[in-house]
Amino acid sequence: MRLRKKPWAVPALQASSIGITEPKQYKGNWQQFFKQRAPLHVELGTGKGRFITSNARIHPDINFLGIEMKPEALVYGLAQAEDIVDQGNLGLILTNINHILDIFDTDEVDRLYINFCDPWSKKAHAKRRLTHHNFLAKYRQFLAPGAEIHFKTDNRGLFQFSLNEFADRGFRLKNISLDLHQSDFEGNIMTEYEEKFSSLGMPIYRLEAMLE
Amino acid sequence: MRLRKKPWAVPALQASSIGITEPKQYKGNWQQFFKQRAPLHVELGTGKGRFITSNARIHPDINFLGIEMKPEALVYGLAQAEDIVDQGNLGLILTNINHILDIFDTDEVDRLYINFCDPWSKKAHAKRRLTHHNFLAKYRQFLAPGAEIHFKTDNRGLFQFSLNEFADRGFRLKNISLDLHQSDFEGNIMTEYEEKFSSLGMPIYRLEAMLE
Repeated sequence: MRLRKKPWAVPALQASSIGITEPKQYKGNWQQFFKQRAPLHVELGTGKGRFITSNARIHPDINFLGIEMKPEALVYGLAQAEDIVDQGNLGLILTNINHILDIFDTDEVDRLYINFCDPWSKKAHAKRRLTHHNFLAKYRQFLAPGAEIHFKTDNRGLFQFSLNEFADRGFRLKNISLDLHQSDFEGNIMTEYEEKFSSLGMPIYRLEAMLE
Repeated sequence: MRLRKKPWAVPALQASSIGITEPKQYKGNWQQFFKQRAPLHVELGTGKGRFITSNARIHPDINFLGIEMKPEALVYGLAQAEDIVDQGNLGLILTNINHILDIFDTDEVDRLYINFCDPWSKKAHAKRRLTHHNFLAKYRQFLAPGAEIHFKTDNRGLFQFSLNEFADRGFRLKNISLDLHQSDFEGNIMTEYEEKFSSLGMPIYRLEAMLE
């Protein structure tokens, strides 16, 4: 996703009650950021925030955080979330996922969403894939028992890689879909990217991986 | 696979030392059928037998059984196996897989191959799929601890279904491939059907499921 630079994006995020540019201060205390104590669902690579914002709107009883490193993308989330700011169940974090262990403490997260992350198709770049076992090991450190990772991609190679990484690392797989929009799966919330790709007839792959 | 009726097929299988038309007699005693005691690998739906025969040729230290209900297909296996009859590590069983519990006893089988079985695409026919959990429950009754099921198909819907059935039933998945012939997987032995399909550029799906 190429977006024009927006010098005002970081100040806008700082000024908003749902923008979070200094997330470390909440580590271990995320429940205090929200209006209510509730399960915490986090999206890695939130982009313009449609997925996480839609979720927060539909599920007021769950707390949501979207993480994105590009301010010029994340700032769109502020606009998308305008009508639900008062619900107090959404935060948009500006940071790089490589620093995720600085943000979340043991058992703090109940669900992780990874949607259409960069496939890093070259083998030499495999470690950058957000489903690489090095990342899975990091996620384990803050996922609560029984937590789930919900993963979607349009990239067959990345999906194959991810199936194996999850299975090899002892996650229990379920609701695996090799063509999400032709399946029986209900309640799917599309990302911006997903809408574009599936409208071209490309299959979308999806899985849920559960910590046992 | 439509094949011409061959009235001589059953007599030919009966007359061959590797044809088995009365498999029940060996239940619990399969090791006695072979020349040597060795791990037992079984293919369900062997068809014309190329896969199982090739395996038996390459791996003289393993015992192989192919199961097929159509005598007019299985009889081709006799011809394919002519050069390895004396190895004494191959049998071709004529029977319906629905009767598989009459053939194998507890812990008797170390690996099960399911290659390009009928996808039974209609939901009403799901129970007939060889990876349906009812079948998986049957297989468990004769698979030894640590045994594996190796499954290949060209049918995306069947593969999706199978991934979920295996995962839901507590099998540990590994070596999952969404495009076998573009993957790093080595040592693949192609079935007749697989050669035809992959030559048309269709992806072949494959997985290994391990009993834990």
